Amino acid sequence: MSVTVFCLIERFFTQPQTRNASTRLGVGDDCALLSIPAGHELAVTTDTMVENVHFFADTDPEQLGHKLLAVNLSDLASMGAKPVAVLLALTLPKVDEQWLTSFAKGFLALAEQYNVDLIGGDTTSGPLTLTVQALGVVPQGQALRRSGAKAGDYICLTGAIGDAGLGLKINQGYSCPNPESALKQFNQPEPQIAAGLELLGCANACIDISDGLSSDLGHILEQSQVGACIYWQALPLSDAVKAYIEDTGDWQMPLVSGDDYQLCFTISPDHVDQLTIDCIKIGVIEAESGLRLNKSGIITSLQAKGFEHFS
Amino acid sequence: MSVTVFCLIERFFTQPQTRNASTRLGVGDDCALLSIPAGHELAVTTDTMVENVHFFADTDPEQLGHKLLAVNLSDLASMGAKPVAVLLALTLPKVDEQWLTSFAKGFLALAEQYNVDLIGGDTTSGPLTLTVQALGVVPQGQALRRSGAKAGDYICLTGAIGDAGLGLKINQGYSCPNPESALKQFNQPEPQIAAGLELLGCANACIDISDGLSSDLGHILEQSQVGACIYWQALPLSDAVKAYIEDTGDWQMPLVSGDDYQLCFTISPDHVDQLTIDCIKIGVIEAESGLRLNKSGIITSLQAKGFEHFS
Repeated sequence: MSVTVFCLIERFFTQPQTRNASTRLGVGDDCALLSIPAGHELAVTTDTMVENVHFFADTDPEQLGHKLLAVNLSDLASMGAKPVAVLLALTLPKVDEQWLTSFAKGFLALAEQYNVDLIGGDTTSGPLTLTVQALGVVPQGQALRRSGAKAGDYICLTGAIGDAGLGLKINQGYSCPNPESALKQFNQPEPQIAAGLELLGCANACIDISDGLSSDLGHILEQSQVGACIYWQALPLSDAVKAYIEDTGDWQMPLVSGDDYQLCFTISPDHVDQLTIDCIKIGVIEAESGLRLNKSGIITSLQAKGFEHFS
Repeated sequence: MSVTVFCLIERFFTQPQTRNASTRLGVGDDCALLSIPAGHELAVTTDTMVENVHFFADTDPEQLGHKLLAVNLSDLASMGAKPVAVLLALTLPKVDEQWLTSFAKGFLALAEQYNVDLIGGDTTSGPLTLTVQALGVVPQGQALRRSGAKAGDYICLTGAIGDAGLGLKINQGYSCPNPESALKQFNQPEPQIAAGLELLGCANACIDISDGLSSDLGHILEQSQVGACIYWQALPLSDAVKAYIEDTGDWQMPLVSGDDYQLCFTISPDHVDQLTIDCIKIGVIEAESGLRLNKSGIITSLQAKGFEHFS
């Protein structure tokens, strides 16, 4: 870590106190130190957001701070890991105090909600690029992977999809009567931490919907070497998304739009009753490879098309 | 982690095999998984390098891959941590196969040297920005911190300083007869991992020279609430750096230039004999605050001026 990092991070990102019992040493030395509880593994992930690629230049910095942390915590959730700490690498064109104060407010509010310590980072000068590394713990050998789906499993979602996709379209100019909920889903998604923890020992495979259901479920199918059929009628869609589809005819949007950060998991029918979380069954895992959609009795093959980072 | 990450990372950054015994799950899921050996803590750090800020646009990508990893491993070295794994967040203006192949070559060669697994990352589109998160392990409670220096400690370096600073000046147009060694120190620094491990249980405080001796030693003094005097005659300077000083009169360069990545540590005189590594005594820790330089018997106060990230 470098000279300026703790100047800027201490100035704008100081948390009231070290909260998480795992933190041994936070911001201010060459490394942070964590202790991992016995019988647990460390889960670690990183996600970057770039101005004009992942967010608009005029995005509310408080919402951006929330979303940057949320998308990283969502990766922990999808493994069933409990968040512990994060590092923040900020590349900033300039030190804009108002922007940083607001960004930190959104970031730290979500961190506090999940008892996550900001234990280090780096601050550099350059085009606005935001990278978080998130660290969590999961009981040894129990992490939810993409590779465990079995033929006969139910495919479930923890909540509605398509709202974040609609929020993006509203940001791009689409007009609809009640945009608030879709915009909130797009700008301030909630990582499904509690659901991930609940799924430990129950679900066979899990992923978060970051790039779109067909694309993300496609990863489970590929890594589990199975196929799936999902039922159009079973998809959990909000009234706003239903109205969008009626208005535009674009019924594929909720299948291919990302940023919802619900969990998509597969579970043996025998285990469904153990769950106390919201769990919407949308299809079944099949031995035959490929992803199929049953829409009013007509079965079509779905291409795994989600958000493409390089086009 | 996102769709493209493992496409690009699998394509360009595949290591022959998982090498490190700590890795439970590498690239390809929402998180990577590590097991931390009993009795150890996790040390974690992140450093970003931005084009035209930390490196020139025409920098050899193989050297850049080496240096990006080296500066992160150096942070582990300065805590006495043993490197285990890294994550790589690459923001790229385009997918330049030749550049990526060469960058990966430098990065992976150094990773192999220290038995470090690349266990995950993110690849995004945008201005060239490179962030590594490095993870290591250190015996519980034994990490070398900046805050442990005591009055009477010797201040030591693991090797010469100023060569990377000279390398930067050569890159900026300064001409000298034998530039190779300085350029190598600037472009391909070696993280002092073995030295950091050797210092565990011996040294009282440690930091790596990333921003310049006066600045980095300044952090030890500040966090340990002590002062120091260093002796000009004792500073380990290469012939090329001595010649540069003779040529330009800029004798402060080795004190304020960064990027050498030697370790600067403080150690009780009683413990010096335990060390088997190179160890150059350059000064002593004193109770009186401030950093002083003794140059030919004249003592002056040194300002902590190193590389400034925002000017």
